[in-house]
Amino acid sequence: MSLNRTHYRPIDAGVLAEIRAAVGDAAVLTDPERLAPFARDASELAAVPELVVAATSTEQVERLLALADRRRFPVTPRGQGTGLAGGAVAGCGGVVLSLAGMNRILAIDCANLVAVVEPGVINGALKAAARAKGLFYPPDPASFDTCSLGGNAATNAGGPACVKYGTTRDYVLGLEAVLANGRRIRAGGATRKGVVGYDLAHLLVGSEGTLGVITRLILKLIPHPPAVTTLVALFPRMPDAMRAVSAILGRGLMPSAIEFLDDHCLSLVGDLLPFRGVARAGALLLAEADGPATVIQQQIEAMGEICLENAADDVLLAPDSEKRARLWDVRKQVSLRIEEQNPVYIPEDVVVPVAGIAEFVGRIPEFERRFEIAIYAFGHAGDGNIHLNLTARSESDRPRVEAAIGELLRLVLAMGGTISGEHGIGAVKREVFHPDHDHHFRGLEPRNS
Amino acid sequence: MSLNRTHYRPIDAGVLAEIRAAVGDAAVLTDPERLAPFARDASELAAVPELVVAATSTEQVERLLALADRRRFPVTPRGQGTGLAGGAVAGCGGVVLSLAGMNRILAIDCANLVAVVEPGVINGALKAAARAKGLFYPPDPASFDTCSLGGNAATNAGGPACVKYGTTRDYVLGLEAVLANGRRIRAGGATRKGVVGYDLAHLLVGSEGTLGVITRLILKLIPHPPAVTTLVALFPRMPDAMRAVSAILGRGLMPSAIEFLDDHCLSLVGDLLPFRGVARAGALLLAEADGPATVIQQQIEAMGEICLENAADDVLLAPDSEKRARLWDVRKQVSLRIEEQNPVYIPEDVVVPVAGIAEFVGRIPEFERRFEIAIYAFGHAGDGNIHLNLTARSESDRPRVEAAIGELLRLVLAMGGTISGEHGIGAVKREVFHPDHDHHFRGLEPRNS
Repeated sequence: MSLNRTHYRPIDAGVLAEIRAAVGDAAVLTDPERLAPFARDASELAAVPELVVAATSTEQVERLLALADRRRFPVTPRGQGTGLAGGAVAGCGGVVLSLAGMNRILAIDCANLVAVVEPGVINGALKAAARAKGLFYPPDPASFDTCSLGGNAATNAGGPACVKYGTTRDYVLGLEAVLANGRRIRAGGATRKGVVGYDLAHLLVGSEGTLGVITRLILKLIPHPPAVTTLVALFPRMPDAMRAVSAILGRGLMPSAIEFLDDHCLSLVGDLLPFRGVARAGALLLAEADGPATVIQQQIEAMGEICLENAADDVLLAPDSEKRARLWDVRKQVSLRIEEQNPVYIPEDVVVPVAGIAEFVGRIPEFERRFEIAIYAFGHAGDGNIHLNLTARSESDRPRVEAAIGELLRLVLAMGGTISGEHGIGAVKREVFHPDHDHHFRGLEPRNS
Repeated sequence: MSLNRTHYRPIDAGVLAEIRAAVGDAAVLTDPERLAPFARDASELAAVPELVVAATSTEQVERLLALADRRRFPVTPRGQGTGLAGGAVAGCGGVVLSLAGMNRILAIDCANLVAVVEPGVINGALKAAARAKGLFYPPDPASFDTCSLGGNAATNAGGPACVKYGTTRDYVLGLEAVLANGRRIRAGGATRKGVVGYDLAHLLVGSEGTLGVITRLILKLIPHPPAVTTLVALFPRMPDAMRAVSAILGRGLMPSAIEFLDDHCLSLVGDLLPFRGVARAGALLLAEADGPATVIQQQIEAMGEICLENAADDVLLAPDSEKRARLWDVRKQVSLRIEEQNPVYIPEDVVVPVAGIAEFVGRIPEFERRFEIAIYAFGHAGDGNIHLNLTARSESDRPRVEAAIGELLRLVLAMGGTISGEHGIGAVKREVFHPDHDHHFRGLEPRNS
């Protein structure tokens, strides 16, 4: 993947002066040391921008984009730079527009169950503010304590809670955005329903900044569930775990999370987990139920029984809160550990229809053998959203990793899946975007069952 | 409201022959007797189309629209004609394209929890087919046993279940549609997640046929709730009932429906209800909870207590199934009864932020006095979605009714509401559309509370 900045001329002194006049001197960073932190996101890509505009108001965004439209320089909007797809990297050069400074929670409205926020608010900060009023903002990307809500909306971020609660799009009721010509629009609103006009708010969600820069969000909140309980199950083989997931969903149990780790991940992080024998298990399921205490107790027990029916070696119900925190902490560290251990590391983020996950994960070892690489798989089993982490021991193996990715994505598409469940296209997947667009609709004819 | 067909030339014999050649003779209706049923929907508008194409395949839709694009004749897509906004009425002349004959349920996929349907499938038929497999398709417009899913998607239909389950848009995972130039597109898919490309599927939902004709839908199903229970509460005054609704939602109880009827509605249909004293009550709340039996019992009792705390005169918990069916039957007949009793009858479908409904309904009597009309209010209290039925005793009063509507819609907008929660713009609201588009976003700054 190469980033190409040849389409645009560098910003010259005249345009720089116009930018300073438009947004104010204090908002413009040009010192190389101050630009460096804006060169990367959480992908492998990097490009130092020509300058950064650190916006603190919508008016600055309007003026910058109007000027960019007139003077033809690229602007790459950026929140906290936690994206995995290079979407916040200024691959075309020009300006990185940081929204991190627009970070006020403007309202938590308990009577209407909505929050109004600026795009730079950290996801976890909204969760905490809502929690303090008995409310819940469910979307929970792994980076929730560092990622910002504007980026969450721009990428339609998901997370473990999606299986029960849906993605960020399901929580965006309305938004304000600035279009590429500098015009500010508002779409949606604070009402729970509304069928007046096209649904532009949800079109902007997931558009990765290509349709506009989100400068304000009206987000739906829900009452906070009174309790949560957790289950950990160890399986000898991955397909067993996946069959348990299908059975749990098929019987109408509704986990608030149902995550899995494969044997490679467990060999890497199993010893960090507060349970015995994890590092040698074939697969781990981490499931939760939230809601009224009596109900979730029944739910989690029923999930545990289903795991045992599907060959689980061990099921642990309701670990204490310290163990639960440890579990999630380790679950969230997995990608980092994989990256640390492997010179070549490419994270993929595929989705297959839920009924196909056992078959799909069952075929991963075949790819490992064929391409002589290691593939670490974990992710959101209940959504069919599998984070495939393809790795190799040296740079010279990279072509084999890339070849394996091509084949895996073809398999995903052939199964009616899609090549990204939550990370997005960004710069990383731009080249493979088209095949998906043609093929990920085979699901229009799923089988009867 | 006048329908204007002057923009287009009538279809001549040459174009008619081309239409017959494109879609097949058998699909083309021209006999006035056969055209008549296609002249109206459930609004006051009527226009007999020049001809009807009754499609049974997507290929016919493609060919008709490609031809319409070339020969410049209007095409109005139509499902079962149950819309309340004139959207299915061929006000511009030309062709009505009936999708009613494309009515196959292509799959109910229990493993992936999706259904694949043609647009002419009746909502209630999908509900029944899903129910037979233990699954649930929640969207439930009042006309669910006669309206079709293509129209539900085109208008983003709502219903009583929205308060818990969301609108039709929340159940559309993917769709196939034919654009105005005859090109077939597919958007979305059968996976639960996916962030590849713009969210065109959800943009088509609610676009009322203006962006394309939906020819196939992939719909999300969920496990069927094991049980449901019902509450009826009578209040002396409407604002009391609305305060009870706010309290129920605010305390985190999650009704699967929470409907209200005002005193005018009760005086009209109260005697049909299987309870005493209803016709003289100030307001009625009909609330339900669905889920595991033990949980919903607690929920419905808590809702009942909140009603009593908010001045309810009478609360009836869990009526038997016969009474429950009667309740819903009467609730759904209300508009029909209002229409029968009143020579002038204009249904409006406003939404205000939930916290504003007590204030809003409290102001309705002032409008009745000022304009000397009667306003029957009922609707989906939990969404703030109020069906205002403005009536008068004679045609000469119609201008006063229309003046009252204008004022009411301005009030709705000033409160951060929107002028249609589920009926849509269609032809009926085309003229008042723009003000809403400018103003219904005030909700971007709701209060802290």
